[in-house]
Amino acid sequence: MLSKSIVYGRNPVLELLKAGKRSINKIILSQTARGTTISEIVNLAKRKGIAVHNVSPKKLDNFSEDSQGVVAETSSVKYVYLGDLIKKAKESPRSLLVALDGIEDPHNLGAIIRNCVAFGANGIIIPKWRAVGINETVAKSSAGSVEHILVSRVANINQTLSILKKNGFWVVAGVKSDGYMLGKFDFHFPIAVIIGSEGFGIHELTKKKCDFLISIPHENAISSLNASCASAIILYEISKIKF
Amino acid sequence: MLSKSIVYGRNPVLELLKAGKRSINKIILSQTARGTTISEIVNLAKRKGIAVHNVSPKKLDNFSEDSQGVVAETSSVKYVYLGDLIKKAKESPRSLLVALDGIEDPHNLGAIIRNCVAFGANGIIIPKWRAVGINETVAKSSAGSVEHILVSRVANINQTLSILKKNGFWVVAGVKSDGYMLGKFDFHFPIAVIIGSEGFGIHELTKKKCDFLISIPHENAISSLNASCASAIILYEISKIKF
Repeated sequence: MLSKSIVYGRNPVLELLKAGKRSINKIILSQTARGTTISEIVNLAKRKGIAVHNVSPKKLDNFSEDSQGVVAETSSVKYVYLGDLIKKAKESPRSLLVALDGIEDPHNLGAIIRNCVAFGANGIIIPKWRAVGINETVAKSSAGSVEHILVSRVANINQTLSILKKNGFWVVAGVKSDGYMLGKFDFHFPIAVIIGSEGFGIHELTKKKCDFLISIPHENAISSLNASCASAIILYEISKIKF
Repeated sequence: MLSKSIVYGRNPVLELLKAGKRSINKIILSQTARGTTISEIVNLAKRKGIAVHNVSPKKLDNFSEDSQGVVAETSSVKYVYLGDLIKKAKESPRSLLVALDGIEDPHNLGAIIRNCVAFGANGIIIPKWRAVGINETVAKSSAGSVEHILVSRVANINQTLSILKKNGFWVVAGVKSDGYMLGKFDFHFPIAVIIGSEGFGIHELTKKKCDFLISIPHENAISSLNASCASAIILYEISKIKF
C-alpha cells in the first residue's frame, strides 16, 4: 500500500528537491518564512512544477514543530516522465493512455485508476495543478490498482495533448453532450482519452485540442454521470475494439 | 436538496412510528433506556423493519439533552412500497429496477443513483440492514438525482427477488467473473439488476436466486471495478436494448 512521508526543515527539503529521487506531492510553506534557503526552495519547486502551499505558522506546526517554516510531502508512487509513458504505451499493440483534466475528488481518481487497470490502459496522465495527486485516499479507493499502472504528472495538460498528437495518438475527450455517440463511433489505437473534472467537464481550450469529442448516450438528458462512471463506460467501449 | 431531521423524546418517537407518515432512517437508543414506552418503540420499529442502534447515553446527548434515551432520524426522501415500485416499473415499456446488495459507501450509492437516473431505471431497491440509506452524503454524491427516482427499502433482498420473479422480472446480477459476458448476452425487459457490495460482491444465497449472472469482460483479470462503475457499464449496456 502507498505510504506518504513528510520531510521537514529548510536544508532537508532543499536537498530533497535537488536530489529529485523521490516524488514530491507538494511543498507546504509558512506564510512568515523568509530567507535565502526558502527562496531557493520556492524557485526550485517552481522550476520542477511542484505546487507550493502557503499556510499559517500554526498549521505548519501540525506537521512538525521543528519545521523551520517548510515541509515537503513525498509519495511512494514513482511518477514517470511523460516521454517514458508514451514510449511504453506505444510498445503495446493497444496503446491507450488516459489523461485527467482536473479531477479533484480522491475517491473518483482512485476509481478511475481502477478502471484504467481493469481495461488495460498503459498509463495515466494527471496535472500537477488544481488536481488531486496520488495520496493515500486515492490509493485506497483504487483498491491497490495504483501499484499496477504508470502515472505521469504534467504541468500543462494542453501542451501534453500536443505532444500526444505528435506521437500519433488520437486524442478524444468525453463530453456531457453533443459529441459523437459512444458505441456508434469507431476508435483506432493509439488512443488518449481525456476525462474531465466532476464540476466543470473538460476545459474549453482542452476541448479544442481534441481530435474528437464523444458523448455517452443516455436516456435522461438532464442527468449526467460522475467522472469515474463515465470513464468506466468509455474504457469499456474502447476495450471492445478489435485490433 | 435532501434534509434530515431528528425527532427526540419517548412519546414523540412513539407517535412518529405509529403515524408512519415520514420515512425513518433509524432509531437511536441509549443503552440505559428502560420502560414500557421504550419497549413499545423497539417492538414497533422491529415490526416495521427499522434499524435500532444502541449507543452510550453520552453519545445520545450529542443529538439532544432532552432525548429521554431515544432519538429517531427521519429523512425527507419518501420511500415507496415495493409493490408500488414494481407496479410503476411495469407501466414502463422498458421496465428496469436496480436492487443493491449491501452497498455501504454513501459515495458509491450516490453515484449508482446517478447512473440509474441517467440510464432510465424506474426505481431502486435498497436493503434496510447492513447498507447505507439515503442520507445527505448520498444525496450530494447523486448530484440531485435522488429526487428523480423512486426508492424502496426492503427487509430481505432474497424475498424481494422472489417477488420480482413472480412479477415477470428477469433477475440478473453482476459478478466479478464466470458470468455470461455482458455485451454478448441478450437481455429482455422487464429486468431487475442486482449490484453487489464493494467488498464482498453478491451474497451466495442471492446469487442462487438470480436467473442469470453477468460479468463485465475486462483485460486485466486480477483487477475489479468498484460497484458504481460496474453498475454504470451494466446499465449502459441495458440502455442499448431495442424494444
